[in-house]
Amino acid sequence: MKKAVVVLSGGLDSATCVGIAKKEGWDIYPITFLYGQRHQHEVEKARLIAQHYGISDHKIVDVQFLGDIGGSSLTNHSIDVPTSGLTDDIPNTYVPGRNLIFLSLATAYAEVIGAEAIFTGVNALDYSGYPDCRPEFIQSMNETILLATKTGVTDNKLSIQTPIIHKTKAEIVEMGMKLGVPYHLTTSCYQGMEKACGECDSCLLRIEGFKKNQASDPIEYQIPIDWRGSL
Amino acid sequence: MKKAVVVLSGGLDSATCVGIAKKEGWDIYPITFLYGQRHQHEVEKARLIAQHYGISDHKIVDVQFLGDIGGSSLTNHSIDVPTSGLTDDIPNTYVPGRNLIFLSLATAYAEVIGAEAIFTGVNALDYSGYPDCRPEFIQSMNETILLATKTGVTDNKLSIQTPIIHKTKAEIVEMGMKLGVPYHLTTSCYQGMEKACGECDSCLLRIEGFKKNQASDPIEYQIPIDWRGSL
Repeated sequence: MKKAVVVLSGGLDSATCVGIAKKEGWDIYPITFLYGQRHQHEVEKARLIAQHYGISDHKIVDVQFLGDIGGSSLTNHSIDVPTSGLTDDIPNTYVPGRNLIFLSLATAYAEVIGAEAIFTGVNALDYSGYPDCRPEFIQSMNETILLATKTGVTDNKLSIQTPIIHKTKAEIVEMGMKLGVPYHLTTSCYQGMEKACGECDSCLLRIEGFKKNQASDPIEYQIPIDWRGSL
Repeated sequence: MKKAVVVLSGGLDSATCVGIAKKEGWDIYPITFLYGQRHQHEVEKARLIAQHYGISDHKIVDVQFLGDIGGSSLTNHSIDVPTSGLTDDIPNTYVPGRNLIFLSLATAYAEVIGAEAIFTGVNALDYSGYPDCRPEFIQSMNETILLATKTGVTDNKLSIQTPIIHKTKAEIVEMGMKLGVPYHLTTSCYQGMEKACGECDSCLLRIEGFKKNQASDPIEYQIPIDWRGSL
């Protein structure tokens, strides 16, 4: 079995990526990052997701520096997370350099264990407008990691896999439900409380994804959600 | 004054970069990485170099994960550092993903503090053949960081500066001596002992750099070095 590193946040998208990689027959090596995020309990969720799939080799990596320098409402708790819906601007939940750093660390890990792929659940359709979720970033990053590494120079085999980058949240949820992804173990809310707020960008996108599938999200929300669906 | 993040290892090349950035009038923000390297005392040297330049805001960043995963004689102490001179192969001192990770973390920091440049002392001439020191990697990385970041999207201003990438070690030393770079505070040896071994690739390159300038290296070596020079 070929090895794949999967960037696993504990959220819906990355959990779906684990399900997809599993279905495709990869030997999965999840990697999860601690960076002082508000929603740090997502790391515990990531652990449970890995356990669900019977994966024992799960790397939890401390990138506290990213939290320490701040520059985001997700790491600086004195900045409020917006709850007024998506806009055309890059919101303050953007974390400078996050995917660049995560994919760089995943690259080092992939090279050491001899993995041929790095899966990441970035999405450029139903997303918060972060620059580091766009296909042009991923393509450029893939070229860069091949130039940066010995494995890139010698066999040119390391690729970044983004199976849900062009999918709507509804399509992701539909695919994940078919694959049996344990969505009850995932978390998406930016606020990081025990129950999801139901109001931040991430909650709004997730709720809509389940609604369009006329399905109930198995996690708990702080506010009542009407799951009758919008289809 | 415009701000620049300078990746400062405590070695000769990065110290020269500080001297060059200073001469060019940048407001310097050094960043140094702890990654379980054998030569971890280079971090102390980096501190002294920053102090020498009167810089108080010096970030020391823990990237222990890079050491934990191993894959290099610099981080895995059970692998010997080669002392038989440079070859055409990538040596075992290569650290997977190192500059990719360092430049990614430097990018996040640069974005948060509003720096316009990241200086790195990579060199592709008198070097150990690492893929992540080549100009093609740096160029690709620069394109990638502009795509990854808000600052890249909004004003396209963040650039990776590699002032010594095409210079020989002799040219670097010559330039550094003119700039008054405190080479007595630097360390280059891969072995990481109190006195430089004088035999590893890094020592051999450094020694030759001083010799060609008919200058004595101000640091101490374990073996006698003939500094009469090769010019």
